[in-house]
Amino acid sequence: MPRQITAFSNPLVKQARSLRDKKNRRAEGLFLAEGLRILTEARAAGVLPEQLFFSDASHPLLQALIEETEAAGGDAIETSGDILHKISGKENPQAALGVYRAFDTSLAGIDRSAAPLWIVAQALRDPGNLGTILRTGDAVGAGGLILIDDCADPFSAEAVRASMGALFTQRIAAARWEAFVPWLRSGPGQLIGTSLNATEDYQAPRYRKPAFVLVGNEQAGLPEAYERECDMLVKMPMLGKADSLNAAVAAAVMAYEVVNQWRRR
Amino acid sequence: MPRQITAFSNPLVKQARSLRDKKNRRAEGLFLAEGLRILTEARAAGVLPEQLFFSDASHPLLQALIEETEAAGGDAIETSGDILHKISGKENPQAALGVYRAFDTSLAGIDRSAAPLWIVAQALRDPGNLGTILRTGDAVGAGGLILIDDCADPFSAEAVRASMGALFTQRIAAARWEAFVPWLRSGPGQLIGTSLNATEDYQAPRYRKPAFVLVGNEQAGLPEAYERECDMLVKMPMLGKADSLNAAVAAAVMAYEVVNQWRRR
Repeated sequence: MPRQITAFSNPLVKQARSLRDKKNRRAEGLFLAEGLRILTEARAAGVLPEQLFFSDASHPLLQALIEETEAAGGDAIETSGDILHKISGKENPQAALGVYRAFDTSLAGIDRSAAPLWIVAQALRDPGNLGTILRTGDAVGAGGLILIDDCADPFSAEAVRASMGALFTQRIAAARWEAFVPWLRSGPGQLIGTSLNATEDYQAPRYRKPAFVLVGNEQAGLPEAYERECDMLVKMPMLGKADSLNAAVAAAVMAYEVVNQWRRR
Repeated sequence: MPRQITAFSNPLVKQARSLRDKKNRRAEGLFLAEGLRILTEARAAGVLPEQLFFSDASHPLLQALIEETEAAGGDAIETSGDILHKISGKENPQAALGVYRAFDTSLAGIDRSAAPLWIVAQALRDPGNLGTILRTGDAVGAGGLILIDDCADPFSAEAVRASMGALFTQRIAAARWEAFVPWLRSGPGQLIGTSLNATEDYQAPRYRKPAFVLVGNEQAGLPEAYERECDMLVKMPMLGKADSLNAAVAAAVMAYEVVNQWRRR
């Protein structure tokens, strides 16, 4: 049976709220996801929250989530809209909110043979871009997202929200470039860099599996040394005045080209 | 010669700051753009600010901007980092900030023969998505963005920033659907809707110029009646668990397919 919490001072409320800060997410190994749609995507992927906060249990999808969360040993906690607001910090909090155990993000957890395509992002700073790339990764059948160097936190509220649940279906790894390259070269895989410095059009090469699509930092793009490591360096046509695309858009346009080639065979 | 303003209470400072609110942008017919990169894109497109605020005039691009702003009758205003912070509301404000006259956004201002491709977005609520679509529009050589029904404000700080200057190179129109359809049908143009309800793959049709690519609201997609008006309704392959893409990503993947077809001919 769900229990009720009505006090702002309750330790579980305080802990959940503390997860808005990266420091606390790291320390606790937990993160927040908000909204029945995303929580239901997580459940469909076999991931249940340690704590499930909600203010109105009448939705059948929420009822199912409550039952499974409790069956798996988690807490289902009925609370007020005010407390959901306090936890999420949003004016109009979602009716349900889950506290989840953070995933292993070691490179060793990536099985490259599990998917034909992987997205790799270097020094990606915008958590919304990160979440959007996860969502695109799911759409193109990628196995996951490998985050190189200092990236935004994939477990931040904004990244989780932008992923629309793909955080729970895509593998995520984080590594320094110096660790990524030996890992990549220890097995099959084409490293395809997108770059303003490229001369080859992104539709010219024939891409092979497994393909690793690499996009660089929002402002600076890829460091030159990283570009030199790529098996191919390609660019999207830029027909206007600007010289670059949003990083999540570039990843998506590139990834769709790769899977479109494979669809045609 | 630039003049100096050091008082928070200066009316120009107060006015510039007030432009963070949509209500005031509407009332004044003005908007804010921040950062030398975006201001320089505007200048390259022949658009100069009515007021140019800056804290450090040493950058050559800023010097050129100051000269041209003054030559065009605008105010160049040297001020403090604190005042730039007060205007922008950001912790680390950019070193330059412009107050611009808002553009005409009537459909009558759109000359469809000026470009082979136009992007149309319906009830787009996220200003970041809106700006990102403008940026993509520039990249694919689109003429501009037509905003249908209640969309985010293209002149909001977030949209301007996400556009990376494309706000100044793309035409922008805003119209109700009831006004857009007769306008569209008064001349040549294919209306290409992207929809989860479509059965046709987005790579199957041959697109003709001028093409109008239509994307729907982030949550709800396109209303059914709007889909029925489309000349074709297509979908991107969704190979994973999710059933949709971010709206700005969908617009980009679709727009690149259209221009890629034309590049191949």
